[in-house]
Amino acid sequence: MFDKMNGVGAHEVIIECPDHNLTLSTMPLESVEGALWAFHNRIKDLKNDKRLKYVLVFKNEGDDAGASLEHSHTQLIALPIVPHLVQEELINAKQYYNYKERCIFCDIIRQESANKKRVISENDEFIALAPFAPRSPFETIIYPKRHESSYLLNNNPRQMAQMLQQTLKQMDKVLDMPPYNMMFHTSPFKDEINDYYHWHIEIMPKLTKIAGFEWGSGFYINPTPPEEAAEFMRAAEI
Amino acid sequence: MFDKMNGVGAHEVIIECPDHNLTLSTMPLESVEGALWAFHNRIKDLKNDKRLKYVLVFKNEGDDAGASLEHSHTQLIALPIVPHLVQEELINAKQYYNYKERCIFCDIIRQESANKKRVISENDEFIALAPFAPRSPFETIIYPKRHESSYLLNNNPRQMAQMLQQTLKQMDKVLDMPPYNMMFHTSPFKDEINDYYHWHIEIMPKLTKIAGFEWGSGFYINPTPPEEAAEFMRAAEI
Repeated sequence: MFDKMNGVGAHEVIIECPDHNLTLSTMPLESVEGALWAFHNRIKDLKNDKRLKYVLVFKNEGDDAGASLEHSHTQLIALPIVPHLVQEELINAKQYYNYKERCIFCDIIRQESANKKRVISENDEFIALAPFAPRSPFETIIYPKRHESSYLLNNNPRQMAQMLQQTLKQMDKVLDMPPYNMMFHTSPFKDEINDYYHWHIEIMPKLTKIAGFEWGSGFYINPTPPEEAAEFMRAAEI
Repeated sequence: MFDKMNGVGAHEVIIECPDHNLTLSTMPLESVEGALWAFHNRIKDLKNDKRLKYVLVFKNEGDDAGASLEHSHTQLIALPIVPHLVQEELINAKQYYNYKERCIFCDIIRQESANKKRVISENDEFIALAPFAPRSPFETIIYPKRHESSYLLNNNPRQMAQMLQQTLKQMDKVLDMPPYNMMFHTSPFKDEINDYYHWHIEIMPKLTKIAGFEWGSGFYINPTPPEEAAEFMRAAEI
């Protein structure tokens, strides 16, 4: 498997805001919006390097979430292969599409919007959900409501920034500024525009420990039902 | 996927040794051997419950590895489904077997034994290896050298205990008693005796943090080459 992988890639750090004491949830909305544009522009530029197949944007906030710098920052790693977990999502989404002729994420958004129990918030363009089977307490996913296979197709970072900052403010309020990991999942360069995949932002506050059961099974023990997490998040006064 | 999963299962804690201050690496060898027999007997007994498909034996040693009790203990969780990661190993091993008509793990053991660079130690029946692509620094895997698809087929826990304790002693020496997770992987009940899968013990000292890159990609950043880890382990005076 791995013998054909070569060592090329890129690793970049994006500083969202010059103020050392602010976080993504407390900095001016313009800074969040600026960072989201920066991700967009950096991915677009890295796409020109034909050796790269995928760019993973992620953020580690707080010591326990693996942050090694104190000043708020987001990272991106450009890879010569599509990440395993993204590949899994792509395969399953494609299978669903072949069967139903609909994007599974669009279906999830439609069903969750109707059901409401796991909806945390929404604005005109975005929706924040507690997923049906969260890996950790208060895991939250932000989707564009309209079908968009790639992050590069989105040109409304103001609405995205608003939804992202609101979600992080709610999390800070409910969980007292938890450490968290945030990951952007999007379609790989080679199949950027498609009908079956839907880009999204995953946010996982670090409240539980990954231990033997998780390492051995690939399953995650989560004591907090997503319906309860969503209820707490909705009720947060921010 | 998940809608057919029901809630049955079992969760048991196995105390390896009555002495509160001893660990698996410092307790008498007889206690380790006794624990390995206990795993054997508990799995065999749980197999009688037809609702259960798999028993995962695992150990969390130390706070940072998720241990919530101080006294050394191993846990087992019996599940109504085969764990995701075991399923992945089974599928890939079966694919390899269909292609080569050989167990991939037997091939790995043969190749690593010839090459020697990633071999940590061996006795008559067992071998400890630093895997070719370890998820974390000093990840170690113990295999029975003879083809054995299931843990239940092994009736030489003395040799297993010796290899396990020696490996943990080496780890304690080299890494100064690190927290670690240990997981036993074996064939599921419904296909216990087969030619393609090979049971094994995975040991992962907790030296790095799982952060955004790992959560987003399913790939693991590991700064320590397995050849170096194996060399350090071999050189440990225990």
